[in-house]
Amino acid sequence: MSQFHYTWSMSLIVTGSIGIDTVETPTARADRVLGGSATYFSACASFFTPVRMVAAVGGDFGDDHHAVFGRFPNVCTLGLERRPDSITFAWGGKYLENMNVRETLFTELGVLGEAPPKTPDEYRDSKYVFLANTHPAVQRELLANFPDRVVAVADTMNLWIDTARDELDSLLQDIDGLVLNDQEAMQLTDRPDAISAGHAILEMGPAFCVIKKGEHGCVMIHREGIAALPAYPARNVVDPTGAGDSFAGGMMGRLAAQHIAVNEPDKPISFELLQEGLVRGTVVASFTLESFSLDRLSELSREELDDRVREYQRIVRVE
Amino acid sequence: MSQFHYTWSMSLIVTGSIGIDTVETPTARADRVLGGSATYFSACASFFTPVRMVAAVGGDFGDDHHAVFGRFPNVCTLGLERRPDSITFAWGGKYLENMNVRETLFTELGVLGEAPPKTPDEYRDSKYVFLANTHPAVQRELLANFPDRVVAVADTMNLWIDTARDELDSLLQDIDGLVLNDQEAMQLTDRPDAISAGHAILEMGPAFCVIKKGEHGCVMIHREGIAALPAYPARNVVDPTGAGDSFAGGMMGRLAAQHIAVNEPDKPISFELLQEGLVRGTVVASFTLESFSLDRLSELSREELDDRVREYQRIVRVE
Repeated sequence: MSQFHYTWSMSLIVTGSIGIDTVETPTARADRVLGGSATYFSACASFFTPVRMVAAVGGDFGDDHHAVFGRFPNVCTLGLERRPDSITFAWGGKYLENMNVRETLFTELGVLGEAPPKTPDEYRDSKYVFLANTHPAVQRELLANFPDRVVAVADTMNLWIDTARDELDSLLQDIDGLVLNDQEAMQLTDRPDAISAGHAILEMGPAFCVIKKGEHGCVMIHREGIAALPAYPARNVVDPTGAGDSFAGGMMGRLAAQHIAVNEPDKPISFELLQEGLVRGTVVASFTLESFSLDRLSELSREELDDRVREYQRIVRVE
Repeated sequence: MSQFHYTWSMSLIVTGSIGIDTVETPTARADRVLGGSATYFSACASFFTPVRMVAAVGGDFGDDHHAVFGRFPNVCTLGLERRPDSITFAWGGKYLENMNVRETLFTELGVLGEAPPKTPDEYRDSKYVFLANTHPAVQRELLANFPDRVVAVADTMNLWIDTARDELDSLLQDIDGLVLNDQEAMQLTDRPDAISAGHAILEMGPAFCVIKKGEHGCVMIHREGIAALPAYPARNVVDPTGAGDSFAGGMMGRLAAQHIAVNEPDKPISFELLQEGLVRGTVVASFTLESFSLDRLSELSREELDDRVREYQRIVRVE
């Protein structure tokens, strides 16, 4: 950590899970590889700006798992809490033939069933906050640690829509943006399509809502307008795990980096800046799909990423 | 027809169906309104360039139906063949709640079960040819009428993939581009996703393949590259019938108009020109959704259409 100066210029933070994933696809499998929402998010955000991570692991978290973070020098692991007597969150899943449908084979909550990780005091000045998916009451508690925030964005999932609706409604009052997938957006709002659902979510509190549609791209409904993008047309999807968190990481990383670059830390995040974020999120997630775990991301250079951004801009040319 | 000069500058042609549609949606219905692939195609193409139509109707085709074409002065109906002793193709369908799933309630082939409509001699110099969905053997027969064509694009459907595969394979040798939906592309190629399916279709003959994904936009796989676009984020979908044919009409109308504008009628259609076509197809189809039949299109001005193109360009900004 000695390489970082604690200034607002290093103040993107993610709270979320670190997991040990076991993944089966129609043609391959990976056993107990590094995963988790905070992991994918921070790896992807780190191509754009330094990123702080708040998450917990257990005594079973191996040196091999930890070493992966070393491949991403812009990820600060000061907030990675190790609990020797606990076990790390573990997830097992299986993708069916078209890679869009997955079954969860097992979930061991481990540290995720215990108290939330502690936020280091050094992180309290964070300006750009992403609350990866967890119980909305925990997300609110974590959010309270960042009084100087410029923007707070949260992810959520169907489980909390079903089981913690009141806490989720409260969270929506406190955040600027919500990220979720299209099925979840329709479930949350009881609307039959993603566009109507996104508009309904704005009436619940957030200034914007980003709806992820997997291979079909994303839509952002914002008080100031709408943005829509196709996915990068990937041909070699090895494992989609983590693509949604990667997308959010690229989006938040880009907007933090650009907001910092203009050196106006107290100015709100604009629609156009978020739109630039959607592009980077889309592109960085396309690399996540190309391997199990973070294998492809850990070999990715900023030049390759920028090349694919330019390729994507040609693919989505609207003249 | 007297307003037209028969020069190559008026030489976009569509062969397809004129239908009488009865449509039910969750909240409304329309009885025996004008529909059909050639109808939607030519109405939408006509915002960009004059368009010739080859199709047949029966003795039951009413003056009220015919009058609708009068709202689109750029549609030439010289090739509309009236058969007094036959009946017009009729289709009845019902959309389920999210408007993506539809059931066919009835189909009366009528003139579509008879000999194909005759192509007027005046149309034989057509340069830009769109073969709307019908039996691929009939599409090939129609295509032979246009020896001077610059580009030929065909639509197809699951029925012909199942029942006329050999004829479809032959057709694919003769055309430049294929337009079809994602399910049909996967069925045709036995691939699990639209992108792989599109690449496989190029190996069957065409130089490009446009895959329509409804509310999820479109992808074009072309020998020279890939294009992908989201749909226009529509909120008020009244009736999706005809959106796919409208999309094709906007695409072909734009590329014909632009190709004519540069006054190089023998130069091949470029990737970039097709990409411009995809944008106009996407936008014009978004108006088709806003009413039953051609009600919205018949009130649409070129200015409104251009405004929405500019709005769409802001929505899909990739900077």
